[in-house]
Amino acid sequence: MQDRNGAETLVETLLAGKVDVCFANPGTSEMQFVAALDKIPGMRCVLGLFEGVVTGAADGYARMADKPASTLLHLAPGLGNGLANLHNAKRAQVPLVNIVGEHRQGHKETDSPLTGDIEGVARTMSEWVKTSTSADHIAADAAEAIREANTLPGRIATLILPADTAWTKAQPHGKLDFAAPAPTMPSSAQFDAAVKALQSGEKVILVLSGRALRAAPLALASQIVQRTGATMLAQYANGRIERGAGRVAIARTPAPVDQGVAAFKDAKHVILIGAKVPAPMFGYPGKPDYLMQPGANLIELAAPTDDLHETLRELAARLKALDAVPLLEAQKELALPQGVLTAEAVLRTISALMPENAIIVDESISAGRSFFPVSMGTPAHDYLQLTGGSIGSGLPMATGAAIACPGRTVINMEGDGSSMYTIQALWTQAREKLNVVTVIFANRGYQILKGELVSVGAASWGERAERMLSIVEPDISWVKLAEGMGVEARAATTCEELAQLIRHAVSRPGPFLIEAQIGR
Amino acid sequence: MQDRNGAETLVETLLAGKVDVCFANPGTSEMQFVAALDKIPGMRCVLGLFEGVVTGAADGYARMADKPASTLLHLAPGLGNGLANLHNAKRAQVPLVNIVGEHRQGHKETDSPLTGDIEGVARTMSEWVKTSTSADHIAADAAEAIREANTLPGRIATLILPADTAWTKAQPHGKLDFAAPAPTMPSSAQFDAAVKALQSGEKVILVLSGRALRAAPLALASQIVQRTGATMLAQYANGRIERGAGRVAIARTPAPVDQGVAAFKDAKHVILIGAKVPAPMFGYPGKPDYLMQPGANLIELAAPTDDLHETLRELAARLKALDAVPLLEAQKELALPQGVLTAEAVLRTISALMPENAIIVDESISAGRSFFPVSMGTPAHDYLQLTGGSIGSGLPMATGAAIACPGRTVINMEGDGSSMYTIQALWTQAREKLNVVTVIFANRGYQILKGELVSVGAASWGERAERMLSIVEPDISWVKLAEGMGVEARAATTCEELAQLIRHAVSRPGPFLIEAQIGR
Repeated sequence: MQDRNGAETLVETLLAGKVDVCFANPGTSEMQFVAALDKIPGMRCVLGLFEGVVTGAADGYARMADKPASTLLHLAPGLGNGLANLHNAKRAQVPLVNIVGEHRQGHKETDSPLTGDIEGVARTMSEWVKTSTSADHIAADAAEAIREANTLPGRIATLILPADTAWTKAQPHGKLDFAAPAPTMPSSAQFDAAVKALQSGEKVILVLSGRALRAAPLALASQIVQRTGATMLAQYANGRIERGAGRVAIARTPAPVDQGVAAFKDAKHVILIGAKVPAPMFGYPGKPDYLMQPGANLIELAAPTDDLHETLRELAARLKALDAVPLLEAQKELALPQGVLTAEAVLRTISALMPENAIIVDESISAGRSFFPVSMGTPAHDYLQLTGGSIGSGLPMATGAAIACPGRTVINMEGDGSSMYTIQALWTQAREKLNVVTVIFANRGYQILKGELVSVGAASWGERAERMLSIVEPDISWVKLAEGMGVEARAATTCEELAQLIRHAVSRPGPFLIEAQIGR
Repeated sequence: MQDRNGAETLVETLLAGKVDVCFANPGTSEMQFVAALDKIPGMRCVLGLFEGVVTGAADGYARMADKPASTLLHLAPGLGNGLANLHNAKRAQVPLVNIVGEHRQGHKETDSPLTGDIEGVARTMSEWVKTSTSADHIAADAAEAIREANTLPGRIATLILPADTAWTKAQPHGKLDFAAPAPTMPSSAQFDAAVKALQSGEKVILVLSGRALRAAPLALASQIVQRTGATMLAQYANGRIERGAGRVAIARTPAPVDQGVAAFKDAKHVILIGAKVPAPMFGYPGKPDYLMQPGANLIELAAPTDDLHETLRELAARLKALDAVPLLEAQKELALPQGVLTAEAVLRTISALMPENAIIVDESISAGRSFFPVSMGTPAHDYLQLTGGSIGSGLPMATGAAIACPGRTVINMEGDGSSMYTIQALWTQAREKLNVVTVIFANRGYQILKGELVSVGAASWGERAERMLSIVEPDISWVKLAEGMGVEARAATTCEELAQLIRHAVSRPGPFLIEAQIGR
């Protein structure tokens, strides 16, 4: 620890706090950090060619690793470029440590071109923000950032480092505290209310989210359902669901508002376990802002900050359900569709061919809504989805998930519109030789928005509106985009071609992209 | 004006305020606006596949049109994606009107996935932010946004529209006021101080920025220089400079701190005309935060909000310099370089072949630093550069400039690293059939950062740092990226090939990309 500058102290502290992956897009103010990487071994540093790739990869990494990666970002605009995927990461409730370089203290007063309000930008998407003021504080500040990030259910922590704190020699520091606060539990009165509802004989829906959607807590939830006759539903958007053969299947709350309202129509009691009060993505004319009926009884059993696994165990114990048999999904042979490529045919083909222990990253938006019913009987897998609704999450998330789980295959189901936000992630996949198979649902437009246009009351539209919702004139070749960034790629126009390409892609190391030309 | 909803009222008001181009990346909350485009003719709506393209294009448009375009962005994360180029636009001092859709009022309380602090995000890069609360207020709010945007020197105005204000019928509104405040002038005492310095016989540097860098005010500055023996310099980063044959040549303040300090070493007086106090981009160990000598006399003659053209006329009049002969640049035949392609050879080739009245968009970063000396004698052209230091500005800026000036050729000198931030702009260039020639300086890395690494004290670095600064493994093919988005493209490996490709590209309509493979 002798003769370390602030940047070197930072790298050492991150490693001591078990943060050993850094997704980076550095600039001048971060050069000391880059230099420190060569002096202190142990940090895997992954370059992204755009900051949205960096923050989205850190999100995907944390969803699979259950610990934070760090990011390295350049001043206010660099953080700004990463903001949308920090929004998605925040909604996925992952731990994440952003390191943002700042001008040398004092230089900011010159208002030179890159000067900006980093803290202001950071606060919009971070739960914790701090600017270090001295090289001597960096170790304690970084430890605090890691502690904050690891506080349940996972938080976005942003540490801002003025350039001079990075290049100045740091004094040796004392023992660092990395331990996040212990998880909390619901009160006994909350359990009593839940138990009462579940024993009432009236219709109850358990709404689960967060870490309640892992295999073990889902089995407990299934035991409760088996014993009480309640229904369970996952929140619409969740960071990670463990599903497939040998696990408990759970449906998600439907995204379209009418279907969402229908799902909750008869529920007399709604019990939240790490979930928010169920609501549609958007407000629409003449439609409600909440999915439950106004008279239903809402029981907020466990907050996202509670230990959801232990909450379900306790609830099952109180209901004497621990000896009930959870309903586990059986693996089955799924038929391969044939002929013309439709969105559903792509989902069926992926379901039929996904390898054991795959990671499915779903940003297929409108096309993927039937994935859950279609994929019953697939091998065990993790399902990661767009959580914050800000498209451009899928390719980076797949990148980060692959770095967290080197031995597994990542299959990224990706909308064509959404892929274009952070297409640069393909280059990182090529450089890091990641096992990611990207399937582009090339339906040539923002299909979901055409439905939304109707929902907000615009029943018909003309040529100019159509031009804002279609990605045609010119058509995009995702094969060329991928090849341009060093990723092997092919297009599929039939189910047979798609199946052949998926078999090829999952059998070889490194990234591969398939452009599924839907409806042509 | 009967039977208009809020979105239709907005489109009508923008058109009445002469805002007739909208760069858009809409989502659900903006669907009413999209529908309104078909009902109310006159708005040119241009789709960008990523919000950084949208805001950067609005910047480029405003630099050339001297009036605002509007943007159409989706909620907090959509605005976040556009933030970096709003930073650059703010530093270019352009007028710009952002329209950001928000959830229906009341829906925000559900904290549904796309909920975020739009005003918080907007405030970090906007001079004016307002959320409309009723369809009836939209006309007045939009007029205020346009007035704010057009306030000198140009401001970023962000208007947030909850979805219900867009779909609700709006009451007819009264007469709208679009007139921005009249420009101000320096005080007589400020002129006296400047005149005294310029007549002192001591060394004076005039530092110009903003609209002082157009041809007519530059001619006045040249008359002052001819009469007094002063020196003039442009600020390092400026929104637009009119240069080339028949105009007054002006050098920019050098970017490297040592050269910047050398430029101001002997100046006893520094007079600012729309410029900031000269400072280096970054603070470095042992280097000053300002370029002037500590004892020099700083005269802040004209602020960016003043009428800079009239300020120079008044100053010239007080100095009895209006009959001096400005030093105008003569057009000359420039030699074409031959053989191996270097960064300077690319600059020389572009200089030799640029057509009359071209628009040069420069985001070549390290490679382009010698463009000004190398391009003496070229035809008259506009020079637009990266103003805020946040890379990813060039391709969108070129797109917007081409939409503002359909009859002119845009040549975008683009770094390879910077191009990857907003490469999606190529698709918009193809769709809109814009006359943009993109020349990628493919030197396979963030060359400028290697210099910066040395400047912050890291004299040597190893393999891991090198990997963070190089865009190799894999090499990128910009030809394939361009073709994938419908833009014709070729690579050049020699000066002769480059010259042939530039001749071809400027002689045909529509976009073209040249990958200049430097040093291979």
